[in-house]
Amino acid sequence: MNPCVIPTFPVDIVGDGRWMSMHNRFVQQAKSSEPDVVLIGDSIIQQLQFSSLWTEKISSLHCINLGIGGDRVENVLWRIKNGEFYFPTRVKAVVLFVGTNNTDCTPHEIFEGILEIVKQIKQLLGNVIIVIPTLLPRGQFPNPYRERNDHVNTFLVDKFSNEANKDELTENVHVVKIHENIVGNDQTISHHIMHDYLHLTNKGYTKIFGKVYDTLCELLQTS
Amino acid sequence: MNPCVIPTFPVDIVGDGRWMSMHNRFVQQAKSSEPDVVLIGDSIIQQLQFSSLWTEKISSLHCINLGIGGDRVENVLWRIKNGEFYFPTRVKAVVLFVGTNNTDCTPHEIFEGILEIVKQIKQLLGNVIIVIPTLLPRGQFPNPYRERNDHVNTFLVDKFSNEANKDELTENVHVVKIHENIVGNDQTISHHIMHDYLHLTNKGYTKIFGKVYDTLCELLQTS
Repeated sequence: MNPCVIPTFPVDIVGDGRWMSMHNRFVQQAKSSEPDVVLIGDSIIQQLQFSSLWTEKISSLHCINLGIGGDRVENVLWRIKNGEFYFPTRVKAVVLFVGTNNTDCTPHEIFEGILEIVKQIKQLLGNVIIVIPTLLPRGQFPNPYRERNDHVNTFLVDKFSNEANKDELTENVHVVKIHENIVGNDQTISHHIMHDYLHLTNKGYTKIFGKVYDTLCELLQTS
Repeated sequence: MNPCVIPTFPVDIVGDGRWMSMHNRFVQQAKSSEPDVVLIGDSIIQQLQFSSLWTEKISSLHCINLGIGGDRVENVLWRIKNGEFYFPTRVKAVVLFVGTNNTDCTPHEIFEGILEIVKQIKQLLGNVIIVIPTLLPRGQFPNPYRERNDHVNTFLVDKFSNEANKDELTENVHVVKIHENIVGNDQTISHHIMHDYLHLTNKGYTKIFGKVYDTLCELLQTS
């Protein structure tokens, strides 16, 4: 069985209960907030809210940020099924960005997990706009996890951008190719964009998630 | 043998080489930069450089930030012994902040590891000012890891602030008690200060690391 499609909360190895504290807070926030845009995912989404792109642009879209550092596909699936998406008003758009932490899964497993999350979001929020940024490369030098994320992206682009594969699930789902032009000609990633070769600097967020913001604005305007 | 006093680099479980990339970059940066203040530690130091406190105040002290997310005491010890502290000019002050990731160690082991790092810094940089902020509490609710960090702090304060324990090692080392007034009367930690009950928000950095900045300014002025 593909572990990515089984809703799971992470084992609290350390024992400080932080993940569940964040989940419980998000459930409470969902009940009492009336966001237009919901962002959910791992640390890259979580830290977005401390970037200048967030302060200067994204926050004005009336957002809620449900990022949790270290989250895997199955953790986001669990959160969505357990109260974080029970909003009192209609949500206009969801940004879904998760997968790079599923380092022990195959690209197809990760892809299937993302499809399962999309299905779940549609069940709960109806025909909402769903924006899926492609997974980012990681590591200063080429490594198997860059390839893995690239393969996930190939599946995502094929499923959601290829007319031949359109079905009920793909409706109103938009993949934004943010993974391009990050790796340099010498195959390395600059720390000016990704300070630890995984997470984005302020400059990185502006360059890379700027595309997500532009897509959101465009889609919200025409919706 | 206490694992905290054995210089160790972390196993690259994922296989994307990010930790070693960061270390190698820091070694190169050390060689070519002429910082007055060096900050070294884990993700809390690493993310400090994306806070408004950093931009508005700390960066003006002519700093280099050697924070690596997830770092343990023995990893910082390894980095210092392996080139990150080989600066071409005299460093005035070091801020050392690590220990919360040693969740499987005893408070005394963590404390001894920090002493070992102090010893190593003094060997390499001479009688530099060393500022050690106390470890922060973690987890929304009381848990054993808050107590563990508190015990480390008790050892640190006793060693470096108690006149009776002064020796060659404690000279010019200053513990800053940043751990106080974070946990509320109801024993919880607010997400307005620690967004994930471990890492600091912008507001949290200003409130908590503001004390470190003030101490640094004071010590640098009188040095």
